Amino acid sequence: MTDPVDLTARLIRCPSVTPLEGGALQLLEEVLRPAGFECHRVDRGGVPNLFARWGRKGHGRTFGFNGHTDVVPVGDPDAWTVDPFGGEIRAGFLWGRGAADMKSGVAAFAAAAIDFVADTPPDGAVILAITGDEEGQAINGTRAILDWMAEEGEHMSVCLVGEPTCPERLGEMIKIGRRGSMTARLTARGVQGHTAYPHRAKNPVTAMARLIDRLAAHELDKGSAHFDPSTLAPTTIDTGNAATNVIPATCSGAVNIRFNDLHDSAALTRWLRAEADRVAAETGVSIEMEVHVSGESFLTPPGPFVDLVSKAVAAETGITPRLSTSGGTSDARFIKDHCPVLEFGLVGQTMHQADEHVAVEDIRGLKRIYARILRDWFA
Amino acid sequence: MTDPVDLTARLIRCPSVTPLEGGALQLLEEVLRPAGFECHRVDRGGVPNLFARWGRKGHGRTFGFNGHTDVVPVGDPDAWTVDPFGGEIRAGFLWGRGAADMKSGVAAFAAAAIDFVADTPPDGAVILAITGDEEGQAINGTRAILDWMAEEGEHMSVCLVGEPTCPERLGEMIKIGRRGSMTARLTARGVQGHTAYPHRAKNPVTAMARLIDRLAAHELDKGSAHFDPSTLAPTTIDTGNAATNVIPATCSGAVNIRFNDLHDSAALTRWLRAEADRVAAETGVSIEMEVHVSGESFLTPPGPFVDLVSKAVAAETGITPRLSTSGGTSDARFIKDHCPVLEFGLVGQTMHQADEHVAVEDIRGLKRIYARILRDWFA
Ligand SMILES: [Zn+2]
Ligand SMILES: [Zn+2]
Repeated sequence: MTDPVDLTARLIRCPSVTPLEGGALQLLEEVLRPAGFECHRVDRGGVPNLFARWGRKGHGRTFGFNGHTDVVPVGDPDAWTVDPFGGEIRAGFLWGRGAADMKSGVAAFAAAAIDFVADTPPDGAVILAITGDEEGQAINGTRAILDWMAEEGEHMSVCLVGEPTCPERLGEMIKIGRRGSMTARLTARGVQGHTAYPHRAKNPVTAMARLIDRLAAHELDKGSAHFDPSTLAPTTIDTGNAATNVIPATCSGAVNIRFNDLHDSAALTRWLRAEADRVAAETGVSIEMEVHVSGESFLTPPGPFVDLVSKAVAAETGITPRLSTSGGTSDARFIKDHCPVLEFGLVGQTMHQADEHVAVEDIRGLKRIYARILRDWFA
Repeated sequence: MTDPVDLTARLIRCPSVTPLEGGALQLLEEVLRPAGFECHRVDRGGVPNLFARWGRKGHGRTFGFNGHTDVVPVGDPDAWTVDPFGGEIRAGFLWGRGAADMKSGVAAFAAAAIDFVADTPPDGAVILAITGDEEGQAINGTRAILDWMAEEGEHMSVCLVGEPTCPERLGEMIKIGRRGSMTARLTARGVQGHTAYPHRAKNPVTAMARLIDRLAAHELDKGSAHFDPSTLAPTTIDTGNAATNVIPATCSGAVNIRFNDLHDSAALTRWLRAEADRVAAETGVSIEMEVHVSGESFLTPPGPFVDLVSKAVAAETGITPRLSTSGGTSDARFIKDHCPVLEFGLVGQTMHQADEHVAVEDIRGLKRIYARILRDWFA
C-alpha cells in the first residue's frame, strides 16, 4: 500500500514555487515508474510537466487525473510557525506550502492509481497529467500536456482534477463547472484642454466614468441552472493628471468579467465593444479595448460521471456532495475541450496562506475516494 | 512723455519667473518714485509685491490699477526664435516672455499714470497695486497687497486690472466678471476583494465612476445674463491597481467647477456632498471630499464705471468692446471684495507660449486708453 501522507510530506519538501520544478516531478517519476507507469516529461517554455500512463495508449477506456505540484510563494516567512518546506506532521495535520493546494491531492491520486493498477489491473489505462505551472500564467502547463497528448494520440475518457474543492469538510463539494473569466483593458483618448473651456476639449475621464458606470450597472444574467449570476467588476481607472485646471488627453480602465454558461467571451467582447462605441459616439472620445480571455466557462452537467464521483464520495465520507460551479478558474478550463472533467479534492481553507495545512486523515480519506472512483469506473 | 514700449522692454529683461522678483518691481519703483509716487514693497511669504500711490491716502476719490510682473517659465528654450528675456523689437512687435502677459500692461498703466499726474494733477489719488505672484499660487500676491492696504487705511474707489483681455484686436473685449473656480478631490474607500466574488467586496472604482458620471452629466445652469453656463470637468480618476483579479480598496478622483453668478462655492460644496452621499448609500462605499476654492465668481454689472471704460476704448480704437465674463480666474477675484473691478488690456493670443509678442503700436494704444480713462474718471 502506498502511503499518500508520506508522499505528500516528501513533495512538500521539494521547494517547487512556480515555475520551479524543485524535485517534485522527479520524485513522482521515481515512484510511478517502478509501479509500471510510462513517464514523459513534457516541459515547455521553462515549465516542467509530467505525463504518466499505466496501460494501453490510445482510445481505450482511460481514466485521467490532473493536478499541479507548483505552489504559490511562502509570503511573509515570519507569519509561519512551521518550516513551509518542512512537511511536518503535528497535531494530526500535515503542514507546509502545498499541503492543501495541492501536493496532497497529487499524492492521493498517485497513491490510489499505483495501488489500484497493482491490485486489480484494469482493462484500460490510467493517466496522470501533472503540471508545474498552474499558479502562474498556466500557458505552458496543463495546456502543454494536452497539446502533447493530442500530438501523441494520447486520450482520456474522463478526467478528475484533484484541486481542493471542499469548503470545510472532506466530501462536501464537487465542482462540475467553473465560470469563465476575461479582462477588458480600456483606453479613452480625447482632446486635452483647459477646464475653463471644457467645450473645446474632449474629456476622456468623463467618457471612462460613463462607460465603467454603465458596464457595472448592467445585469449580465440572473444565473443559470448550475451557475451563479455572471459578474462584472471594474478593477481600475487611471489618469495620472495632477493639474486641477487641465482636462487630460487619455484615461485608462479595466473590468474583469466572470461569466457563466449563458455567455462566451466572443459575445461579451461584442457587447463591450458596442457599449464603448455608444459612449464614444456620445462624447467624441475614442475608446480602445484590449481583451484577454483567461478561460471560457465550462460545465459537465449531472450524468453518469457526476453520479459515479458523488456516490464514491458519499460512500467514503457519509456526506452527499454539493455540485458547485463557484470559485475562480482552474485547469479544468483547458481539459473540458478534450473530455468530461470534474474537480474533487481536499478542504481548501488554508490554501495560499501562512501555516497551510491539511488533516492527515483527510489525505488518507481522499486516497480512498479516488481508489473507489477508479474501481467503480473500470467495473 | 513716458515711453511704455521702452519700459516694457526693460521689464522683459528682468527674469521675473514666478516667484522671482528679477529686478522688475525694483525698476518700477525707480521710475515711479521720481514721478511723485509713494512706494511700499509689500512682500509676504517670499513673494515680492509693490504698492505705489500718487496723491492723498485714505478714502478720497482714488483710481486703482492692478497687474503682475511675474511671468510663467520659458518652457522649451528651443521653441523660441528670440531671447525670451531680450525685450527685442522686430517687425513692429516687442518679443519676450511677459510681452503680452503682462509686463506691457503694467508698463502702459504706469506710463499713463506718471504722465497723467504730471500733466493734470487730479483731486484724488492713483494707486498701482503690482504683484510678483499672479501666475503661481497667488496666496501672497494681490491678496497680500489688499490685506496690507486694509491695515494701512488705503482705499481704491474702483480698480482696473491690466491683464490681456482682447482675443485678436486691441479694444475688442472688457472683462466685467469672471466665473468662480473650485476643485473637489474625492476619495472612495470600499472593501478589497477578489473579482470572482464581487458581492463580498465593496468596489470603490464602481462608486467613483458612478459619481463622476452623475456629476459630469448634471447641467448646473443654462448661463445667466452676463455669464456662460457653469461647467464641471472631471480631471482625473486614479486607482493604481495592476491586478486584474483584485477589486481594490480605494479610488480617487477630482473635478474642477467653473461657476457663474448663479452659484457660490458653499452651495456647490453642499450639492457635491449630497451626490457623494447618494452614491455612498447605493454602493456601501464611503466617499471623502476635500474642496479647494480658487475664487468665487464676480460681476461688475454694466453701469457708470463700465460705460466710462467702454467709451474710452471706443474713442481710442474705434471698436465698441464686448462685455465678457469668459476665461479663467484672475486677481480681480480678490479685488472684487474691495471695490468695483474691471479688466482691460492687450491681445493675449501668444501669452504663455514660445515667441510671446505684442504689437508695439498696441502698447502705445493701451497707454492712450488708460490715460483717457484716468482723465474721464477724474473729470
Ligand atoms: Zn491549486
Ligand atoms: Zn496675467
